[in-house]
Amino acid sequence: MTTGLSIDGIILGQTRLGAVDGAAGQLSFCGYDLHDLVAYACWEEVAYLLWYGDLPTPRQLDDLRERLAAARDLTDAELALLRASAVAQTGMAALPFGGHAMDALCAAILALAQLQPSPPMRADTILDAGLHLTAKLPTILTTIVRLRESKEPVTPDPRLDHASNFLLTLHGTPPDEAAARALNAYLVLMAENGLNISTFVARVVTSTQNDLYTAITAAISTLKGLAHGGANEYAMRTFLAIGSPERAADYIAELLARRERLMGVGHRVFEVEDPRVRHMRRLSAQLAEHSGAHPSAQSGCSHAIAVAVEKVIQEHPFFRQRKLYPNVEFYSASLLDQLGLPLDCFTAVFACARMPGWVAHIREQLADNRLVRPEAAYIGPARRQFVPLEQRH
Amino acid sequence: MTTGLSIDGIILGQTRLGAVDGAAGQLSFCGYDLHDLVAYACWEEVAYLLWYGDLPTPRQLDDLRERLAAARDLTDAELALLRASAVAQTGMAALPFGGHAMDALCAAILALAQLQPSPPMRADTILDAGLHLTAKLPTILTTIVRLRESKEPVTPDPRLDHASNFLLTLHGTPPDEAAARALNAYLVLMAENGLNISTFVARVVTSTQNDLYTAITAAISTLKGLAHGGANEYAMRTFLAIGSPERAADYIAELLARRERLMGVGHRVFEVEDPRVRHMRRLSAQLAEHSGAHPSAQSGCSHAIAVAVEKVIQEHPFFRQRKLYPNVEFYSASLLDQLGLPLDCFTAVFACARMPGWVAHIREQLADNRLVRPEAAYIGPARRQFVPLEQRH
Repeated sequence: MTTGLSIDGIILGQTRLGAVDGAAGQLSFCGYDLHDLVAYACWEEVAYLLWYGDLPTPRQLDDLRERLAAARDLTDAELALLRASAVAQTGMAALPFGGHAMDALCAAILALAQLQPSPPMRADTILDAGLHLTAKLPTILTTIVRLRESKEPVTPDPRLDHASNFLLTLHGTPPDEAAARALNAYLVLMAENGLNISTFVARVVTSTQNDLYTAITAAISTLKGLAHGGANEYAMRTFLAIGSPERAADYIAELLARRERLMGVGHRVFEVEDPRVRHMRRLSAQLAEHSGAHPSAQSGCSHAIAVAVEKVIQEHPFFRQRKLYPNVEFYSASLLDQLGLPLDCFTAVFACARMPGWVAHIREQLADNRLVRPEAAYIGPARRQFVPLEQRH
Repeated sequence: MTTGLSIDGIILGQTRLGAVDGAAGQLSFCGYDLHDLVAYACWEEVAYLLWYGDLPTPRQLDDLRERLAAARDLTDAELALLRASAVAQTGMAALPFGGHAMDALCAAILALAQLQPSPPMRADTILDAGLHLTAKLPTILTTIVRLRESKEPVTPDPRLDHASNFLLTLHGTPPDEAAARALNAYLVLMAENGLNISTFVARVVTSTQNDLYTAITAAISTLKGLAHGGANEYAMRTFLAIGSPERAADYIAELLARRERLMGVGHRVFEVEDPRVRHMRRLSAQLAEHSGAHPSAQSGCSHAIAVAVEKVIQEHPFFRQRKLYPNVEFYSASLLDQLGLPLDCFTAVFACARMPGWVAHIREQLADNRLVRPEAAYIGPARRQFVPLEQRH
């Protein structure tokens, strides 16, 4: 008898947000096909859709952009706190800036929470609070990255969109159009995905009458798992281990001989190709053709490696028989690498991208909130008589 | 149609650990009635039971005590990190020491993770890693409390048990016997409670192939909710607002007139009195009779207030009709206050107490681990045609 959780196939709630059809390979947000959204909409429109249930009019979109721009900057106190954390008295990073960016991001959110009260969330105020944290999270992340590299933090530019500000505050210079477009599309593709596991945790934590910072750090913690959002970092680690496209076939043969798993391949829900993969592949290819890899990229040829690995997968009986396709983390790894993101920030960018979905799901939860009480069947020993310590041997 | 999670009554897994019978008011760990465990066993025996499935022999118990003692001290590097975090360059706490102790505790765990690698958890090593964090968590918490009050941290004493070390490292002096016994019993009572919500989150995060620090911070985050572990702090806030026993009836009448909720009353699972309540009541009463409140207690008469409030509840038709009894957080609030714990540490002590249960459940999950995939039914708009921005108005 297993003692693992058995949740699969059980409907645990209802949502008006993402609809995932794993058999057909379809994904839609509030009724709009993701293929249309990524082709025609910017990230700000998608965030509006998830938060308000409809695509915005031009005026509503302008209004959202203004509110995001106003919330994107760190306050002086917030920046002082992050600076203080980067190099504390011992010369050691006080926040976990010396550790993984996901840990640093969570700790920074919790640290910043002391600067403003974070009461239990309420349905009528969650969108405001969620918009603020959504706008600010990339700035927090890029400020952590710059501080730990002893670089000055960069102030967001209110004239730029969310994706461009992310790259501006990371690299210090505004991105070229191809890079901004690629990150915008990435943010759209990853904005929401139904009741996936990190979203589920955000909702479960919300049901305890908790605060926003806590719910979001719990969701980010969940995302860190390498079977969840952490997979993009591990896919990139695989590409780096392969090193160059011509090494792909040998590397995978060696991997299979060691009975190890290839990261970035296979998905628990999508039985056919994940509908996001074709876009990630296209965006990664466009970056490779046009702007090429950013100078801070880990690999000069991550897209070429990804293509070579996919070719091996398509032809190799091991993967063909098991219907293992590249998942969304596969080409998102080569995409994010070409944008010059540090390796340990790949999953943190995913977290920034998923913020609109998390906030929207938290709002749905708050609309009819009640502490959830999971139940397990007890399969352990029947009632036992207590034996005093001295009689045990 | 609700968009909240609907989990109640669905069996989401199996366990050999805690068995909760809400209708009968019974709670057992691995087949042992909690009434027996709290009467005859120390916390260390209960931790052993949860981790190894049986009560320890005297030799096994000695061995566990030694391993806990060896893991309880902060390393020099860990202490330096916490010191650096307490007052960073701006004079501002870098870790959220200026915020809620629960935030500080989570951030500190994530910060300490940078000092030692925390790979994805494995079934064969989780008990060692879990024992270390269980032993150290109280030291981390009490060190945070002392540093934020500008007091020198106190080194644990290997000759003392877990409960006594908690109070020693908090207050700087070894506790008297009544206080040590009361905290030991509290730790036993709260060590495990089946698939409650924070334990469930720990298991869900574990299913993503995550690390221990991340799973535990997610569990602590969940516990913070005021409908979950946060209730003990809010019960104490209520006692403080009441101020003295003779104010209890008037306060509750005013509360009901404002249609507000009385914290520390009612439980989602127990339909009769929670079996832990009688022990909390007894322990709280014994402390009040014998040692009295610690000098750092918030209230000089928290037990007397609790007793007065319970009397009002028992006689008041509002609570009688709804079968609302004091829950486990009610007298645990007066208990923890008399032990001199800062108000924002009440839930953090609960977290320290629940560590054996969390670790045991994580181990059960790892024994048969598979990414859980929660599912929601989509009830939003049917497929909609994308309308370009300029055509929306």
